[in-house]
Amino acid sequence: MTQDATEQRVLDAVAARRELVNDAIDEELPMSEPPRLWEATRYLLEAGGKRLRPTVVLLAAEALADVEPLSADYRSFPALDDATIDVMAAAVSLEVIQSFTLIHDDIMDDDDLRRGVPAVHEAYDTSTAILAGDTLYAKAFELMTNTDAPPEHALEATRLLATTCIRICEGQALDVEFERQTDVLPEEYLEMIEHKTAVLYGASAATPAVLLGADEETVEALYRYGIDSGCAFQIQDDVLDLTVPSEKLGKQRGSDLVENKETIITLHARQQGVDVDGLVDADDPEEVTEAEIDDAVAELEAAGSIDYAREKAQELTDRSKQRLAVLPDNEARSLLEDLADYLITRGY
Amino acid sequence: MTQDATEQRVLDAVAARRELVNDAIDEELPMSEPPRLWEATRYLLEAGGKRLRPTVVLLAAEALADVEPLSADYRSFPALDDATIDVMAAAVSLEVIQSFTLIHDDIMDDDDLRRGVPAVHEAYDTSTAILAGDTLYAKAFELMTNTDAPPEHALEATRLLATTCIRICEGQALDVEFERQTDVLPEEYLEMIEHKTAVLYGASAATPAVLLGADEETVEALYRYGIDSGCAFQIQDDVLDLTVPSEKLGKQRGSDLVENKETIITLHARQQGVDVDGLVDADDPEEVTEAEIDDAVAELEAAGSIDYAREKAQELTDRSKQRLAVLPDNEARSLLEDLADYLITRGY
Repeated sequence: MTQDATEQRVLDAVAARRELVNDAIDEELPMSEPPRLWEATRYLLEAGGKRLRPTVVLLAAEALADVEPLSADYRSFPALDDATIDVMAAAVSLEVIQSFTLIHDDIMDDDDLRRGVPAVHEAYDTSTAILAGDTLYAKAFELMTNTDAPPEHALEATRLLATTCIRICEGQALDVEFERQTDVLPEEYLEMIEHKTAVLYGASAATPAVLLGADEETVEALYRYGIDSGCAFQIQDDVLDLTVPSEKLGKQRGSDLVENKETIITLHARQQGVDVDGLVDADDPEEVTEAEIDDAVAELEAAGSIDYAREKAQELTDRSKQRLAVLPDNEARSLLEDLADYLITRGY
Repeated sequence: MTQDATEQRVLDAVAARRELVNDAIDEELPMSEPPRLWEATRYLLEAGGKRLRPTVVLLAAEALADVEPLSADYRSFPALDDATIDVMAAAVSLEVIQSFTLIHDDIMDDDDLRRGVPAVHEAYDTSTAILAGDTLYAKAFELMTNTDAPPEHALEATRLLATTCIRICEGQALDVEFERQTDVLPEEYLEMIEHKTAVLYGASAATPAVLLGADEETVEALYRYGIDSGCAFQIQDDVLDLTVPSEKLGKQRGSDLVENKETIITLHARQQGVDVDGLVDADDPEEVTEAEIDDAVAELEAAGSIDYAREKAQELTDRSKQRLAVLPDNEARSLLEDLADYLITRGY
């Protein structure tokens, strides 16, 4: 298939599941008392989102159970033994965790906008945003205990969720620390994004394997699939920030450079002796010119730093797809492979 | 026994378990990477705390298993079937949840001091405090999945923890809302403190019953014991704020009045037609005089509001002790009864 056809196939698969996930979010997070708190917990979830992580959960379940995509009810999904499992509850749980981390991260990073709308701490206030995140956090654990999976599998999935959340917090803490440092090695940066971003993809891919009763090797392989493609996804984000026109990106191209945010690209460039701090003079995205960004990108290209990131992302994506060899060769597995490609070929 | 003898007995029981709990906290939360994050997670736990909730966990386990207090190893504790269970992991889990809620509450309430030391967001910064709370939150869930209890019991205990955390968030949201309202009914206030404070006592008492495999009636009775005595504890806090001399209280007596914080006492007084807003003119605890507080307290006494609170606390305590009738009649149960008494007879 051409790249465009692959992309369309992935987008269709994501869109079909997004609708079901959105319905499930409505069911699992009904309005409750006190209303302001529950409105705030739903606010960001309702503002949009591709639902990539739930899509990974649902596709991995379909690949494992070796069923035709979208043919089995996600709410009573066939496990590898005779059990039926609510894999949708697990999918919603992971999206709810993602939402909680975004709400708290936006407070920490003082980001006012998210998904095109004011961040929760702006739309409400910081206290409500902290509390909405805390509520979602508990809700995610409650959901993970309510999949009807055999208790030993449900407990293992819940433990994986807890460990994943600890890793995410450690990753976020490293990210904050790295912002103050310029001598971070590209390998350390990769470890940070593995913790901060990729482990949630890892958990998304591995959780259905745990719940459905797959063997350890399969669980581990799916976990690594998520980790590798999640890291590639994050690296691609850094590449896109420099290479996609501002109007397509929805924000100033090169804003990471303007805001002195270290990425794998700048860290590689520093290793090559590039004066990264001198690349862009402006320190406000509204004051920088396209010409200035063009020059900076050219210098980073010349140092091989953008290619370094692209190659790293490609290498991780290739490896992530190889991990899927443990799964039966079926349509859902092929969609998971395409999804990994999509994460680094997407234009924005 | 005299009140003093009962109190000493409770304090001894708490102190003996506190030492073991503190050792377990050290074991379960070792320093890790990144150091600043893990230091911040441990900071408030190390600053002190009576460890009342873990004590409830451990005493309830001993009462249920009908063993001599402190005779069985909490790390391999005899369940009601043949299993051995790490009830200490559950005890630490609940203390860790308590610590997480304090860290986030102090940010929301803008409280600078906690346990006599700067709050985490003051000692570090707000971002680190949010993240330290989030890390503890996940750690508590991880601990609850690691008690070695049979998976169905462990899963049930983890679900109870999740539900409890949702209730706590709802209670905190109600508390914030009530601060803006003067027409809250005493019954609504009671519901708020049940959510905000008492459910964690409920979970502390019920969790060992779930883990040890007690029947539903016993789990429910212990949960209600915790709820009732937890509510009584919180009401007593409101009484103490008005009746204990400032030097013993460690802060200005009557500070709730000065800060216009509604309590069950002021809400009752409003119902009796007392002009609560006019009771104290000062709006800074450092500017109020003892004479002004004396007059305010006299007016609240005359309206029967302080007695109303005392009677409510006593009624809840009596009921909480009756709940324990489901347990074998043993030394640990008697200590749980004394603990309920202590929560409302304690001087400060």
